[in-house]
Amino acid sequence: MPIVPILSDEDAPAASREVFEDIRRTRKTDFVNNFWRALAHDPALLRRTWESVKEVMAPGALDPLVKEMIYVAVSATNNCEYCICSHTAAARAKGMTDQMLMELLAVVGMANETNRLVNGLQVPVDEAFKPHD
Amino acid sequence: MPIVPILSDEDAPAASREVFEDIRRTRKTDFVNNFWRALAHDPALLRRTWESVKEVMAPGALDPLVKEMIYVAVSATNNCEYCICSHTAAARAKGMTDQMLMELLAVVGMANETNRLVNGLQVPVDEAFKPHD
Amino acid sequence: MPIVPILSDEDAPAASREVFEDIRRTRKTDFVNNFWRALAHDPALLRRTWESVKEVMAPGALDPLVKEMIYVAVSATNNCEYCICSHTAAARAKGMTDQMLMELLAVVGMANETNRLVNGLQVPVDEAFKPHD
Amino acid sequence: MPIVPILSDEDAPAASREVFEDIRRTRKTDFVNNFWRALAHDPALLRRTWESVKEVMAPGALDPLVKEMIYVAVSATNNCEYCICSHTAAARAKGMTDQMLMELLAVVGMANETNRLVNGLQVPVDEAFKPHD
Amino acid sequence: MPIVPILSDEDAPAASREVFEDIRRTRKTDFVNNFWRALAHDPALLRRTWESVKEVMAPGALDPLVKEMIYVAVSATNNCEYCICSHTAAARAKGMTDQMLMELLAVVGMANETNRLVNGLQVPVDEAFKPHD
Amino acid sequence: MPIVPILSDEDAPAASREVFEDIRRTRKTDFVNNFWRALAHDPALLRRTWESVKEVMAPGALDPLVKEMIYVAVSATNNCEYCICSHTAAARAKGMTDQMLMELLAVVGMANETNRLVNGLQVPVDEAFKPHD
Repeated sequence: MPIVPILSDEDAPAASREVFEDIRRTRKTDFVNNFWRALAHDPALLRRTWESVKEVMAPGALDPLVKEMIYVAVSATNNCEYCICSHTAAARAKGMTDQMLMELLAVVGMANETNRLVNGLQVPVDEAFKPHD
Repeated sequence: MPIVPILSDEDAPAASREVFEDIRRTRKTDFVNNFWRALAHDPALLRRTWESVKEVMAPGALDPLVKEMIYVAVSATNNCEYCICSHTAAARAKGMTDQMLMELLAVVGMANETNRLVNGLQVPVDEAFKPHD
Repeated sequence: MPIVPILSDEDAPAASREVFEDIRRTRKTDFVNNFWRALAHDPALLRRTWESVKEVMAPGALDPLVKEMIYVAVSATNNCEYCICSHTAAARAKGMTDQMLMELLAVVGMANETNRLVNGLQVPVDEAFKPHD
Repeated sequence: MPIVPILSDEDAPAASREVFEDIRRTRKTDFVNNFWRALAHDPALLRRTWESVKEVMAPGALDPLVKEMIYVAVSATNNCEYCICSHTAAARAKGMTDQMLMELLAVVGMANETNRLVNGLQVPVDEAFKPHD
Repeated sequence: MPIVPILSDEDAPAASREVFEDIRRTRKTDFVNNFWRALAHDPALLRRTWESVKEVMAPGALDPLVKEMIYVAVSATNNCEYCICSHTAAARAKGMTDQMLMELLAVVGMANETNRLVNGLQVPVDEAFKPHD
Repeated sequence: MPIVPILSDEDAPAASREVFEDIRRTRKTDFVNNFWRALAHDPALLRRTWESVKEVMAPGALDPLVKEMIYVAVSATNNCEYCICSHTAAARAKGMTDQMLMELLAVVGMANETNRLVNGLQVPVDEAFKPHD
């Protein structure tokens, strides 16, 4: 039940269709998923978001699989079903096994738990952890 | 301004001091940070949390540096200052460079952004991303 | 799959039916949506929530359309599907276009992103932004 | 570093001073804490919030100590330092011991952990837990 | 649409089936709900989570019904449908009435509201609420 | 206590200094606030974030004051002190009065409250609010 229609190539504005083409070229697939088709109502938002994702998720000091797993960790913390499904699929395509997924979620769960123990007790940061004097 | 006193070794219950000793043995350091000293008011909570952290953060299908970075990603999403500082320090001790940290946070920021674009538009999950029929 | 039954006028307690009548008078419609019908199990909670919403969302220093858009911004941040749908509908009824919605969500996404960049780097507040000495 | 000045009795609008007096009468103390003094810039917001808190936190089907502990649980989940401190103090004044606080936070931590395990795995609700057919 | 298959007793690893048996013995029922069947892909995660839940939710300084209601409060704050449904069911089985549920949610709503009023105004903690000098 | 040093013009990489210059030109001020000076460690992240903020916050279908208030609404929901301070200052510079701020926060508080009432009761979306058949 999307808030705005999911646009087909035919219904998307020309400026958004151009972004669809770059998505296809970059990912070497004809498939353009619903996220981009919803953003396509606003070509500026679509282009900006796609350019940013392309740059952020590219290989760098971190490898793309680690980046996808971080994406899943954030999405599970925020409970975004779409992003959990799409980035888990992307991480698996890059080599994440079921065991890696389970360990990833174990860390996510533990961090969410200890974050709240710290909050509830208002634990002060140790001098040893302070990054700059 | 902690909610309960941060316990020194002397003030901690005997059962909590035993956990402190295991922390020292496991981490090969005399340092026991404030998080454990706050939990020490409840030896059962302290022991359970420490045993879980020890198991979850150990090498497995994911390496410990990746696990620390996932911890930072969750803590930055939840804005837990203590956990951001302590796990950034831990990740650096395991080899995370400044450039890796900046890329990690770029992914965290991007995921938090696109999670809300998806929410606001209620984008339906593509068939291709559905894990099981 | 509601946790408590959605109450029809017939099944609602008399004190809750009175609130339904005020909703109808105020909004000039016979329609009473599910949110109020779920709260109707607790007439005090229903009355208090309705009186507050009526007061908060009325014209004031901010116009009602801006208030509806702020409601959507919070609901998208929290991923509350019901509130996203109902307040997007309310904002549209007050004049929000698709382009306004897309710009609203672009700001929501950007704020959620930069909030986490700030968290992860623990950026100190500039003197120039401190409101009171 | 409050965003608006914390208002003394002298500086508060007359309509807000009236609410201060009701806070004093209800709580049988001369002390009016900063939260109300910040809201006092907007007498309508102050009155509405105080009336709601007074009603919600009063004895009912749940006793006031349980209500204070639920308040702490939510505030620790959201990391609201002010509310953690003020409602922990209120809960202690109503009889919460340190052991009760530690158990409360253990549940809060566990719930935040399992919420994310469920999210990350998108576990479907069992038929047995569905409240209505 | 779970991310990993929900495992039947037959398909679960032997080490996970042992945990299922402990769940059955402890709860005096043959029913093992989907949460445990999803975790069963990782016997270590399953065992650790079950042992922790069993310990945390047992009678202590807080009674089990209060603990279940705190679980519901956190899950409603985080919007975890599965946990809302399962822990509301558990609380009802321990004696929570509809009126208790409505009051619980009223406190949850109020806390989520005042947390944000405090955030937005950056209200400083009163000296009287500071736990330690 | 920032995680990375806040970079002066002298210490920032040349590519980041160029972005500082664009910030100065665009905002017609010599002041470059700490957020950008922290991001300056990663010129690509700095440039991308600044270009996006510049585009998103510019006048469009929504006016810049409304956009700043939406930014404040999200930041108060997430409790990001830096963003609350900086965007409240920006909104005031664009004409937001104290009364407008108080009404804005009243809506933010109310939305955070009703979001959780809806979650806790799992209220189904009314047909009338469903955007597309």
